[in-house]
Amino acid sequence: MSTLEPVFKSLKSAQAVLALQDRVAKDRGLKNAAAAIEAAQESILAANALDEERARAAGMKEALVDRLALDPKKMRDITDGIAQVARLEDPVGRIKGGWRTPNGLLIEQVAVPMGTVSIIYESRPNVTADAFSLAYKAGCSILLRGSSAALESNRALVRAIKKGLADGGVPDAVELADSGSRDDVDEILAARGWIDAALPRGGKELIRRVVDNAKIPVIETGEGNCHIYVEPSADMGRALEIIANAKLQRPGVCNAVETLLVHRDAAPALLPPLAQRFAGKAELRCDKDSLAAIGPLPEGLAVKDAAEEDWETEFLDYILAVKTVASVDEAIHHINTYGTKHSEAILTNDLRAAEEFCRRVDAACVYTNASTRFTDGGVFGFGAELGISTQKFHARGPMGLEALTTIKYRVTGSGQIRE
Amino acid sequence: MSTLEPVFKSLKSAQAVLALQDRVAKDRGLKNAAAAIEAAQESILAANALDEERARAAGMKEALVDRLALDPKKMRDITDGIAQVARLEDPVGRIKGGWRTPNGLLIEQVAVPMGTVSIIYESRPNVTADAFSLAYKAGCSILLRGSSAALESNRALVRAIKKGLADGGVPDAVELADSGSRDDVDEILAARGWIDAALPRGGKELIRRVVDNAKIPVIETGEGNCHIYVEPSADMGRALEIIANAKLQRPGVCNAVETLLVHRDAAPALLPPLAQRFAGKAELRCDKDSLAAIGPLPEGLAVKDAAEEDWETEFLDYILAVKTVASVDEAIHHINTYGTKHSEAILTNDLRAAEEFCRRVDAACVYTNASTRFTDGGVFGFGAELGISTQKFHARGPMGLEALTTIKYRVTGSGQIRE
Repeated sequence: MSTLEPVFKSLKSAQAVLALQDRVAKDRGLKNAAAAIEAAQESILAANALDEERARAAGMKEALVDRLALDPKKMRDITDGIAQVARLEDPVGRIKGGWRTPNGLLIEQVAVPMGTVSIIYESRPNVTADAFSLAYKAGCSILLRGSSAALESNRALVRAIKKGLADGGVPDAVELADSGSRDDVDEILAARGWIDAALPRGGKELIRRVVDNAKIPVIETGEGNCHIYVEPSADMGRALEIIANAKLQRPGVCNAVETLLVHRDAAPALLPPLAQRFAGKAELRCDKDSLAAIGPLPEGLAVKDAAEEDWETEFLDYILAVKTVASVDEAIHHINTYGTKHSEAILTNDLRAAEEFCRRVDAACVYTNASTRFTDGGVFGFGAELGISTQKFHARGPMGLEALTTIKYRVTGSGQIRE
Repeated sequence: MSTLEPVFKSLKSAQAVLALQDRVAKDRGLKNAAAAIEAAQESILAANALDEERARAAGMKEALVDRLALDPKKMRDITDGIAQVARLEDPVGRIKGGWRTPNGLLIEQVAVPMGTVSIIYESRPNVTADAFSLAYKAGCSILLRGSSAALESNRALVRAIKKGLADGGVPDAVELADSGSRDDVDEILAARGWIDAALPRGGKELIRRVVDNAKIPVIETGEGNCHIYVEPSADMGRALEIIANAKLQRPGVCNAVETLLVHRDAAPALLPPLAQRFAGKAELRCDKDSLAAIGPLPEGLAVKDAAEEDWETEFLDYILAVKTVASVDEAIHHINTYGTKHSEAILTNDLRAAEEFCRRVDAACVYTNASTRFTDGGVFGFGAELGISTQKFHARGPMGLEALTTIKYRVTGSGQIRE
């Protein structure tokens, strides 16, 4: 007997009602949820303190405890985030296309909610509110399966959200799978007919586990082994700024650069100042030619010889692999071999090379003369994001509200029959 | 050691080349393939005769042997179908959206091929050519896994297609999994990183098996337990024609109607002439109220009491279940309970009822005042179809070339870095 089945049922019936709400009603629900979170701030922070204490006692690394911890500033970010989603256009009900057939049928593609979705995520409790608000706006009910480390925080947040929805008289289309047991995840991944899509959000192992075990559609997100390739025609001053931005600004995120590919004719101009710039800031893992191009090592620079595995590693750290290549072809081939189809950039002033790169690199986002760090729902103009899809199916790249919708064909006739 | 791995590899490298071909080159490939099939007609028909003979010897039902059998007319349909796909617009390279961010980045959504797809299908050899041509036009390589019953026919067809492609000097992006072993299917369904999507096309068991076992994305197609709901305000003469069309014209297809729902106030006007019309043509399985509304049974009418299981059955036969309902609400509830989210119709002149029905019925295609039989890629204007998706993920309803594409974000900057 399934333990989550009553939850699945209630999400399904709530979704049927939510799907029919207009934007005004959905935005009222979101605003009430945000107000209720604000009103419950004390109890949410108290619950979060319990999680934090438990995490420290269990020996969680301080960086991870940081991600888990809420404070009044982060609470404001959470409620601001919900208000931001309320301001977004309603993705539901839009006519995405329409035409008449020769016999006079009117065929329209109408955007409708995906249905019931589930997000399976790791410690940050702000994801709880983000995911709820996007799903709600898209007319989807959502089953939240957060990490056990954030259990008390998530319980307090979801309690507040549900209270806010009840106050607004709008459907209560959110549930938390809070047994703390791993069986919850297995049950969600097997919930054919109940859950229309699962979104894993977190580390590599989590995503792998979800993708490998799911019997329901999954949107694979995350891993970003991103590259920047620099041609001799690039503006080297700007190239240096872009590489520094893509590696040093926030190395722990999926759109940070991991490997720098340098055309051999660009290496003498680029690599010595780059070594200077990275000294004391990040380690370089260089192939033979790029090490030679650096010349005398600047004071404080950490350098290692690159190993094969460096090309395939998403360091998520202050480490940059560096490789010299002979052509745009070689760069493209390297990226299509080692990349994770996330974000890839070419820095060049050569039109043909830019075209080749953008057409032949197989990735969700291909950049010319910009930092890979821009791959983000907010930057792309989606207002908020569910994650970044690295698969080709259903959604690719930063996912906003549209990824939570599908279409329905509405066909209007006047008695037509098929000949 | 995988037996299909060399095939996966060759499909992947062929796809990388095919993805970059322009429309002229792809259409040349298609035309050459069609010409080669025409030139090889004798040997294809001879191969088909072997399959037919083997099928009869194995006791295959004559209706299925019919589906398997090719003749000069069907061969012409095959080559005409390929020519038709060549005439379709290229779905690849279209800019599906584009905008500038506040810092001046140009973001474009460019349609690109899905990659390598696999179709797993039953006996009809014409699907071999249809699926190849759609995939080729969309820049996808394709692994065909037909039934063992059509093995010789498929081998001959694929041999001809490959010869045509070679003549045209365009990529040879098609392979047949022809070991005849079920292991092929298992290997395809586990081919993460090689096959981007699998499309099962055939009976219920085949689709179920694929969906249950796939570790790669699947587009679920097919099953259609379709309904027509008739309101008192409908034009009863037209309603009768639509119901007859949807049930009798071709009962073996997924968009044929299986259950008729009649508003109790429409039953007296609709059901007696319907019984007359269906007498000798199809069996009715009626609930108590609809049976009563028929009144004296017309000569030759086959009638049975409807059982619960009739509401959930896709008969694919000359059988129509009939149920009386009290309201559009009850009709919608029945459809959302028993339907397979394929094609559902309301016949009415009541605007509010039509709106309710179209919004609340959860199906790929919802019809007002037309036959469910129109759910078809050709009718919808897609030129050809891969199947009809009954899932919400990635593609819904009739699938044409667009279902074989995804997007890539192309971002063009002038040195932007993230603040």
